[in-house]
Amino acid sequence: MHIEVWSDFVCPFCYIGKRRLELALEQFPHKEHVTVEYMSYELDPNAEENPGKSIHELLASKYGMSVEKARNSNEELGRQAAELGLTYNFDKMKHTNTFDAHRVAQYAKDKGKGREVTERLLQAYFTDSELISDHDTLIRLAGEAGLNQEEVRSVLETGRYQKHVRADEQEAGQLGAQGVPFFVFNNKYAVSGAQPQEVFTEVLEKVWEEEQAQPSLQSLTPKKSKTTYCTDEGCEIVEDN
Amino acid sequence: MHIEVWSDFVCPFCYIGKRRLELALEQFPHKEHVTVEYMSYELDPNAEENPGKSIHELLASKYGMSVEKARNSNEELGRQAAELGLTYNFDKMKHTNTFDAHRVAQYAKDKGKGREVTERLLQAYFTDSELISDHDTLIRLAGEAGLNQEEVRSVLETGRYQKHVRADEQEAGQLGAQGVPFFVFNNKYAVSGAQPQEVFTEVLEKVWEEEQAQPSLQSLTPKKSKTTYCTDEGCEIVEDN
Repeated sequence: MHIEVWSDFVCPFCYIGKRRLELALEQFPHKEHVTVEYMSYELDPNAEENPGKSIHELLASKYGMSVEKARNSNEELGRQAAELGLTYNFDKMKHTNTFDAHRVAQYAKDKGKGREVTERLLQAYFTDSELISDHDTLIRLAGEAGLNQEEVRSVLETGRYQKHVRADEQEAGQLGAQGVPFFVFNNKYAVSGAQPQEVFTEVLEKVWEEEQAQPSLQSLTPKKSKTTYCTDEGCEIVEDN
Repeated sequence: MHIEVWSDFVCPFCYIGKRRLELALEQFPHKEHVTVEYMSYELDPNAEENPGKSIHELLASKYGMSVEKARNSNEELGRQAAELGLTYNFDKMKHTNTFDAHRVAQYAKDKGKGREVTERLLQAYFTDSELISDHDTLIRLAGEAGLNQEEVRSVLETGRYQKHVRADEQEAGQLGAQGVPFFVFNNKYAVSGAQPQEVFTEVLEKVWEEEQAQPSLQSLTPKKSKTTYCTDEGCEIVEDN
């Protein structure tokens, strides 16, 4: 089973949804037959790299609400994250543009470290108050996730992996994603949002059962044609019908 | 696109069908996106290793026909093969048990040489009058196809890859194969028998078009549940319906 997860590093529900999927997977009896792949998605491709405002202020100005109300809303989100063992430090969070972070994650995927880098970048933003558009920061974080830092620097400085990010985003749109996290199972089933762990468990079970069922093949052997094959009875030209 | 081909090395229609598929693939504009994998299938798991009879005699006794009629039937088959550039030397063909040949082909697949070994073994049987159950012969042929001969000897002597052969055969049965060659495209479409090249071309085009079409995802997001995700408008808890 293959699961693709579209998400952004500054998306609070993405980290929560990721953890809920992981918790469901931990208890899934066939987890060793499941692969998870993270895909790029920018919630705001025009986000400033350094807006110079707190996440509470950004939220308040976006929705035309008071900073106090924004803070309360974030605190509620933080409690949901905390239930999963995640620490969301909203007061120090450095909202930023995530395009370069996605490029690094794409490079990491090529090097077999996509999942490590995705987790590291989410933690960096939500917990460690890192500015995840800063190149030196990205290089250091990618190094912690097991990548060669000099190669990451080269990726960042030369603009590589832009096409990969754009292709993922385009695919998300084609698949009907209206937001993230967006989960696709076996290129067939979609789950939107940070669903409860039980939902992921149910979907894993359903997709697994379907995958195990005998595939029902559709015959494209031409009808009424001479079919030439061999059986344990011998080889002959038989009339199909 | 992935094509699985179940076949046996002593199956005259398998070599013909293989070549017709290959000719169709050669002219297929997207051939670089197609992979072909050969699967094990024994037409007669109880075949003797060295029956000491010509293929004409074996055929005659199997069908209760005269050796002359069997020879005519084989000559007709040989003409079909010749149209594809294949040489079937029925007079010298050494019919035999193919279990060990399949084990070698399975080992070859593990080493990335499955297609080379499959072609070499078919040619060995149909054209070169080789006894493809003989271990020294198998080792030499596998070496010609690029495998390490000492490792092939070890595979043959230790009985390795039996399970792989049996698993392929079991899968063929589950998929509804009643004979070989049996072609499965993208684990979804089946073609039985050595169909004309045009049939393979049509199937390649159909499967390719389907593969290129946007996959229509089925949503498993629970209805009426609180869906928590982020969009470019912001993150919020929305009621799905």
